[in-house]
Amino acid sequence: MFFASDNSGPVPPQVLEALTRANEGHAKGYGTDPLTEEVTQQLRDLFEAPEAAVYLVATGTVANCLALACYAQPFDTVYCTPPAHIEEDECNAPEFYTGGAKLTLVGESDRFEPSVLRRAIGGSGGSVHNAQRGPVSITQATEKGNIYSLDDLRAVTGVAREFGLPVHLDGARFANACVALGCTPAEMTWKSGVDVAVFGGTKNGLMGVEAVIFFDPEKAREFELRRKRGGHLFSKHRYLTAQMQAYLADDLWAELARTANAKSTRLLAGLQKVGKIEGDPRVNMIFARLPRKLHARAFEAGAYYYCMGDIAEGDPEEPVKARFVCDWSIEDAEIDRYLEVIGA
Amino acid sequence: MFFASDNSGPVPPQVLEALTRANEGHAKGYGTDPLTEEVTQQLRDLFEAPEAAVYLVATGTVANCLALACYAQPFDTVYCTPPAHIEEDECNAPEFYTGGAKLTLVGESDRFEPSVLRRAIGGSGGSVHNAQRGPVSITQATEKGNIYSLDDLRAVTGVAREFGLPVHLDGARFANACVALGCTPAEMTWKSGVDVAVFGGTKNGLMGVEAVIFFDPEKAREFELRRKRGGHLFSKHRYLTAQMQAYLADDLWAELARTANAKSTRLLAGLQKVGKIEGDPRVNMIFARLPRKLHARAFEAGAYYYCMGDIAEGDPEEPVKARFVCDWSIEDAEIDRYLEVIGA
Amino acid sequence: MFFASDNSGPVPPQVLEALTRANEGHAKGYGTDPLTEEVTQQLRDLFEAPEAAVYLVATGTVANCLALACYAQPFDTVYCTPPAHIEEDECNAPEFYTGGAKLTLVGESDRFEPSVLRRAIGGSGGSVHNAQRGPVSITQATEKGNIYSLDDLRAVTGVAREFGLPVHLDGARFANACVALGCTPAEMTWKSGVDVAVFGGTKNGLMGVEAVIFFDPEKAREFELRRKRGGHLFSKHRYLTAQMQAYLADDLWAELARTANAKSTRLLAGLQKVGKIEGDPRVNMIFARLPRKLHARAFEAGAYYYCMGDIAEGDPEEPVKARFVCDWSIEDAEIDRYLEVIGA
Amino acid sequence: MFFASDNSGPVPPQVLEALTRANEGHAKGYGTDPLTEEVTQQLRDLFEAPEAAVYLVATGTVANCLALACYAQPFDTVYCTPPAHIEEDECNAPEFYTGGAKLTLVGESDRFEPSVLRRAIGGSGGSVHNAQRGPVSITQATEKGNIYSLDDLRAVTGVAREFGLPVHLDGARFANACVALGCTPAEMTWKSGVDVAVFGGTKNGLMGVEAVIFFDPEKAREFELRRKRGGHLFSKHRYLTAQMQAYLADDLWAELARTANAKSTRLLAGLQKVGKIEGDPRVNMIFARLPRKLHARAFEAGAYYYCMGDIAEGDPEEPVKARFVCDWSIEDAEIDRYLEVIGA
Repeated sequence: MFFASDNSGPVPPQVLEALTRANEGHAKGYGTDPLTEEVTQQLRDLFEAPEAAVYLVATGTVANCLALACYAQPFDTVYCTPPAHIEEDECNAPEFYTGGAKLTLVGESDRFEPSVLRRAIGGSGGSVHNAQRGPVSITQATEKGNIYSLDDLRAVTGVAREFGLPVHLDGARFANACVALGCTPAEMTWKSGVDVAVFGGTKNGLMGVEAVIFFDPEKAREFELRRKRGGHLFSKHRYLTAQMQAYLADDLWAELARTANAKSTRLLAGLQKVGKIEGDPRVNMIFARLPRKLHARAFEAGAYYYCMGDIAEGDPEEPVKARFVCDWSIEDAEIDRYLEVIGA
Repeated sequence: MFFASDNSGPVPPQVLEALTRANEGHAKGYGTDPLTEEVTQQLRDLFEAPEAAVYLVATGTVANCLALACYAQPFDTVYCTPPAHIEEDECNAPEFYTGGAKLTLVGESDRFEPSVLRRAIGGSGGSVHNAQRGPVSITQATEKGNIYSLDDLRAVTGVAREFGLPVHLDGARFANACVALGCTPAEMTWKSGVDVAVFGGTKNGLMGVEAVIFFDPEKAREFELRRKRGGHLFSKHRYLTAQMQAYLADDLWAELARTANAKSTRLLAGLQKVGKIEGDPRVNMIFARLPRKLHARAFEAGAYYYCMGDIAEGDPEEPVKARFVCDWSIEDAEIDRYLEVIGA
Repeated sequence: MFFASDNSGPVPPQVLEALTRANEGHAKGYGTDPLTEEVTQQLRDLFEAPEAAVYLVATGTVANCLALACYAQPFDTVYCTPPAHIEEDECNAPEFYTGGAKLTLVGESDRFEPSVLRRAIGGSGGSVHNAQRGPVSITQATEKGNIYSLDDLRAVTGVAREFGLPVHLDGARFANACVALGCTPAEMTWKSGVDVAVFGGTKNGLMGVEAVIFFDPEKAREFELRRKRGGHLFSKHRYLTAQMQAYLADDLWAELARTANAKSTRLLAGLQKVGKIEGDPRVNMIFARLPRKLHARAFEAGAYYYCMGDIAEGDPEEPVKARFVCDWSIEDAEIDRYLEVIGA
Repeated sequence: MFFASDNSGPVPPQVLEALTRANEGHAKGYGTDPLTEEVTQQLRDLFEAPEAAVYLVATGTVANCLALACYAQPFDTVYCTPPAHIEEDECNAPEFYTGGAKLTLVGESDRFEPSVLRRAIGGSGGSVHNAQRGPVSITQATEKGNIYSLDDLRAVTGVAREFGLPVHLDGARFANACVALGCTPAEMTWKSGVDVAVFGGTKNGLMGVEAVIFFDPEKAREFELRRKRGGHLFSKHRYLTAQMQAYLADDLWAELARTANAKSTRLLAGLQKVGKIEGDPRVNMIFARLPRKLHARAFEAGAYYYCMGDIAEGDPEEPVKARFVCDWSIEDAEIDRYLEVIGA
């Protein structure tokens, strides 16, 4: 009954097998090995982007920050939404990697409203005294478990384009969004106006690998230097590569995401009976308000997830908001047990 | 016949087994899992440092840079030797993590001469116009394959102490030096005046894990924040921990280092017959000058290592310097074959 | 009819005279001259702070940024209001000087509401993933021409104190606020809970000098190093000092501020007749909405100030907001002429 | 008898007069005033560079650092000589402004030897692991009081050009070198292969103004943003401009430099009689070794300058090295008195 995060589950056997396979003999370091070349090409193929510059790093934090650093000068601002992970959960890593760029919070939700974004960009920059206009950073799926439709995405990237600004896509849950939309990775990225995307693996079954994909390879060399300078160029790179190899084989990435989304749907069906759901969850993350006593009962029974409020003290009937995230490995039985505990 | 680097070999089976064992069920993220707590304690025990703050990161670059960043202010300078890895091979990562501290190169060799270090420190700092005196960074074993005896170490750290400066130890090849000296990790670190040490695993058989050990835990919180800000806090931290668990079990770290050192000794014995050895190699790295034609012949036969000069063009008899590094996995047969190829 | 900014007027003759007096013979550089020592002591006396560390710099941007950099770590956030100059008008200088700290915008006005500030601080920080809690930055007078009463100030600094956070006061218009409140500099700073204050001179009649005053001298050395590193330590420091000397003599700072405030009051009296005033201006800055046609007429007649909207195009009767700032040197006749032009 | 630095003397009356003249009425801020436009054009004319982007800042530190920051990426290295001011005397300001670039010290003297520079550049960079090749920074006149002939300059910039690297010229004592060579500012800069030059005023009679001149205006906007972000854009810019206006009028800059150089020559003639001169001083800086007792006697008589050694303790006859700098305002009588005191 572990719904705290999709970074808490194990990796599927294919990943361990790939690591074992890669663990043969000597290999050149720093990503110059043949396996890395092969997997890089597979990623280009998956994204239908033969010219793309593709890199693997081990954390989502740095995947996003390095991507942004290639597009944001130190005197620029990055446009994001208030709950954006880069704003809320990275201990100033974006500021660090960009050399001190600012983050401008646009609107009040987890999704950009195009008109609000347009106003925000239009009202910023303009003189040497202001932070200059920099990249627009979109999270898909968002930090609140929502997704942009392809039309939504195009509307947002279109606003960036009006101002000549590049678009970054934080894809920590890229796969979950992609299978929920039933679209291709290319459609959800460059075909919708994205310049650089993070194709997340860590939250979707890998030990720790994210692919950063620059659709225009102009930033390739700069990325490589910034990655090294950040201490993120792995000498034994093949162990990152092997994980991605497993992830791509037979579209494991999509299968894992479909599984996680389905688990979440199963959980959702139950939660709806006893609580109030926020929004319209379509990926593997649900925000719901349940009576305090239900959380308390569940935790006592061994459940674990984030509650935005004290569950021990207060009116037992009062609703307390919680976040539920399912990873691919959650068993149906666990979900059912949780629902049983809370009487759903 | 791969002598390019000790970051090119596979990992021993124990590491894969530990990863497999760790891959069970859900675990809290970011190093708050029980396994990490356990392994952290094991490291404290190994270093006989019950108060130490201990952290795992995935690359040596960041292990050293984060350690330095906790001791060097942006207006400070770090004292190191000219061939120090932090100076030569990190694409300005130390400058990045320290916020712009300088590196002052001391002397002309890979080992600090205490009197030269004293003069360098004494001649630096002093006014608001200068970079201020910051940490002394020692590499053990050095980038040239040499080691400091414990007396040597104490002499160097003693100079730092005279000026009230902290001492950092870059231990990418910590284990190789430690077993060569036949001393304990504690003796090679805090008992010899080291404030923060990197206990390297990546070059000694792990996929990518280094332990950073602060003997005075005062910098613990700062390290944690800087690690997160650098994108180096792994959400699925247990996969770093598991590697270190395997490394510590039955002193695998020492066994691997002893093996690598022994391979190097075997290689050395042969190289001496046909080339000129630099210094007195005691760990798993040898610098030797061989006639150009021998390198050419070896490469043709499939050998791979770094040559400081063109091996295709030039007088075939002219000695060309090369670096040979043995990792634990090199087979004696490969070494012997190499020696046979070069006629040693 | 120049109401664009109080950084647009000339300096009073006393400043030129002081420069001339200081321009005698040789003087040690970098602030080690006797005049600087003397003026530093005068500032300590003025602020009734015998232990204070006092420094002169040439711009308000750097005065604030250096002060903040001494209190905000790169992984911290600085709390300020949305229109704060450090957020809006410094091209990421605070991020630069702090090494990448964040700015958290609190509330929706130019003045901190204590309860809103308490909620903002309480809801931030808390884990290694977040920006950590850093200094609270207050502007007095605010960027909207408002002032905090001493009680207001104490309420805000009290909230910072609850969390153990330091307080910075941006005093670009320190003198204008101080004379408007009729309080002493000490009362408006350390007696109200301020840790470091900028005593602005540039907007109040100097060529370019601001004093940074640390009431706790613990940060003194760090400030000196950061100032030098920022390129803000003047070799011919006496020419900064001389300006401050003139500023302090016979309380010129207060006299200039009183004059500027009075000019503003005169202007206000007229503006009220034809436009709508924002808030309750008590220093030398007024925000007012006037019919578009009046702005147009005034600009045609040679007036100059900032209008937040197009004055050439649109309904002539529609109110357009504008900012009016009076400096000490504006002549009553100019104000009267402006009022006459707009028919007030 | 003040020979400590050319930043210790007063400014000539023309500078005060220009400040007084500029102190009339209101002027737009931040360098958008008509006087700044005029003086900027005068600088373009002086340098015969109609396209140049020209900026004024108040300190030499920042003039050099901003210029370098426009050409050096954070992962680059700047080539300079060991005694370069940017290395020795700026408390890591170059590292700060470049976002963490390295400084590579070339050779062992204050002047680049072209062949040594070529070897240094050729031996650096090359892989993602190294600091990348960045700008070459030349100081003219050097920190040791030497100058490059135009042929020397061209030889050095030619090496940079071989590698496609930009050239920065630190001209803290630009004027002194220029008049000593009897060449034009254009000849000493872009005609000799310099990309960005600092035309120093502060050490040659101004209160604090340096012009930064980009011969290729491509970096103009970046410079403006970096200047603002560094807190170096003066709101009351006219007071910087006025100083430069005086400096340019009737070639005051050349006259002051000629005067200072002549004073130095007068001093040199005497010093030679009692001490040993280093090199062949041609500008206003002399390094000389005098018996300890002479320094002691001079200091007792009120002289002030830098001695590289204790003058109170030690063998009275032992030579102690000292630096003598003459500014334009030193009177012949003072020089003569000093020489008399030391018996020259």
